[in-house]
Amino acid sequence: MKKIKIGILGYGNLARGVECAAKQNQDMEVRAVFTRRNPQTVEILSPDAKVFPVEELAKPQNIDVLILCGGSAEDLPVQTPYYAERYNVIDSFDNHTQIPEHFEAVDSAAKKGSKTALISVGWDPGLFSLNRALMSLILPKGQTHTFWGRGISQGHSDAVRRIKGVKDARQYTIPASEAIDAARKGEQLNLTAQQKHRRECFVVVEEGADLNRIREEIVTMPSYFEGYNTKVHFITEEELKREHAGFSHGGLVIRTGSTGWEGENKASCELSIEMDSNPEFTGSVLAAYARAVCKLSEEGNFGCKTIFDIPLSYTFSKPKSEMIAQFL
Amino acid sequence: MKKIKIGILGYGNLARGVECAAKQNQDMEVRAVFTRRNPQTVEILSPDAKVFPVEELAKPQNIDVLILCGGSAEDLPVQTPYYAERYNVIDSFDNHTQIPEHFEAVDSAAKKGSKTALISVGWDPGLFSLNRALMSLILPKGQTHTFWGRGISQGHSDAVRRIKGVKDARQYTIPASEAIDAARKGEQLNLTAQQKHRRECFVVVEEGADLNRIREEIVTMPSYFEGYNTKVHFITEEELKREHAGFSHGGLVIRTGSTGWEGENKASCELSIEMDSNPEFTGSVLAAYARAVCKLSEEGNFGCKTIFDIPLSYTFSKPKSEMIAQFL
Repeated sequence: MKKIKIGILGYGNLARGVECAAKQNQDMEVRAVFTRRNPQTVEILSPDAKVFPVEELAKPQNIDVLILCGGSAEDLPVQTPYYAERYNVIDSFDNHTQIPEHFEAVDSAAKKGSKTALISVGWDPGLFSLNRALMSLILPKGQTHTFWGRGISQGHSDAVRRIKGVKDARQYTIPASEAIDAARKGEQLNLTAQQKHRRECFVVVEEGADLNRIREEIVTMPSYFEGYNTKVHFITEEELKREHAGFSHGGLVIRTGSTGWEGENKASCELSIEMDSNPEFTGSVLAAYARAVCKLSEEGNFGCKTIFDIPLSYTFSKPKSEMIAQFL
Repeated sequence: MKKIKIGILGYGNLARGVECAAKQNQDMEVRAVFTRRNPQTVEILSPDAKVFPVEELAKPQNIDVLILCGGSAEDLPVQTPYYAERYNVIDSFDNHTQIPEHFEAVDSAAKKGSKTALISVGWDPGLFSLNRALMSLILPKGQTHTFWGRGISQGHSDAVRRIKGVKDARQYTIPASEAIDAARKGEQLNLTAQQKHRRECFVVVEEGADLNRIREEIVTMPSYFEGYNTKVHFITEEELKREHAGFSHGGLVIRTGSTGWEGENKASCELSIEMDSNPEFTGSVLAAYARAVCKLSEEGNFGCKTIFDIPLSYTFSKPKSEMIAQFL
């Protein structure tokens, strides 16, 4: 079997998640990891892959797709457009409000370089987006509610870690159970994401850091914390390691709607996901969809794509007839 | 807005479900219903549509897509290949084991006539298939279980109604709750569909019909009842109307799997659907995917497709940027 040659840019939890996913898929191999750190200091999981300095990507590499594993706050807005001109790329950019802008930047770069890019692939945005759209298309008269948590949000933890004086941080998103019950009943909820969830941050700071400034920077951060009920706890590094080491997460998408000539009948769809490790699960989604990036690129279908553009058969490694027999 | 012109073949509950769905979607209009009955006796919901005898389909009709609303047992295996050569078509063929054969017949007809066909679209096969495949691709090490019910199966009720001497019938599929709990826990279940569900039939017979023969024909029917724990109750027409008039249904797809280098972490995905009216919900799925059939046909992408071949953006009536902003 011809294997998909994967390159990974940025080596953190998500990158390790991609390595784990590639190990579970026999048609994939991680060939290289590119890092801004000293490659000698980066120990990766994949026994047959090599670690290179990021500058190496300036020379053509023997990879089919580059999986971008940086953060959505600062890395991906720069990295994805930059590398989309040079490689087929996929990212898990998760800052919902900025996706349209990110799409435009990546699309023009990928088209310029005749490459295929796929952005915002994970579970949300990603699997949840797909089901939100599908449920709304099928039940156009209705309402959709998405709930996240309880769990660590990598994007939000990352955003907190980038604040000056912050050494490490974990952010928990916590849904309001009354809101979940009301959504299932199909009640008209006019709750914002901010009212449906609260946020809790556990933060380790550097010696002498200004706690008030850090707290203020967190709770007022646009797109991430602004408008949310956010609690900030300053804790020791030991406590963080002891109590907040896991990366569990989960969430729900609930659509309720009506069918019938006068909308007299009810229908509801609900997708729920639970995971012990958010980066491993997200890495698994990235790996599956990396197949689609390679197929689209082989077909000469360039530019930026989203999960809505991908026929599911493009993520399947075996013949279409097997997919029909196995899943339809 | 240019509307999608829909034709419907066969006028029963599913056809009425399609009409209701088209009413909820401003970009669609039901133009014509084609029936084997005397058109004068068929009263449809859509005020602007006309009823024609099925023979009218031999002449070219001004429709973009023909939605086939016949039964999977006897109608669709003949109708879908036949009309796929002449029209863009979509069906909800739901006899899982015979899908590959149906696909081949429809594919060669559609290619011969340069038309686009989409088969087996509904909630199962359909939405459940899509999520089964997606979950398995993301969690390749794991197990998937599908449960149906409690609810009326149109396909199975239809199959019973076709038996000689049967006047009317309803078939309930009932899942075993212990099996659902075990599936959620990720326990290794080696249960067949037959062990996870039982079937219950409520049958009205014609005067003088041979009850033993009918019971025997039901419980031994290949693909439908053979191997299942099936109870058959003979009841009066009045009781059927009083107690079994609804078409509620539902079901669950559960995937549990592992992530991590040694599979040390767990993850699970679950999709559940509940509906007061199975034919209306299925009709809603058919209507949404009818858009995709028209777009593929306009692009010259002919032949038989399944839900795995359709990018979700093809089911969306508005520009892609709106889909990104609204759902991603």
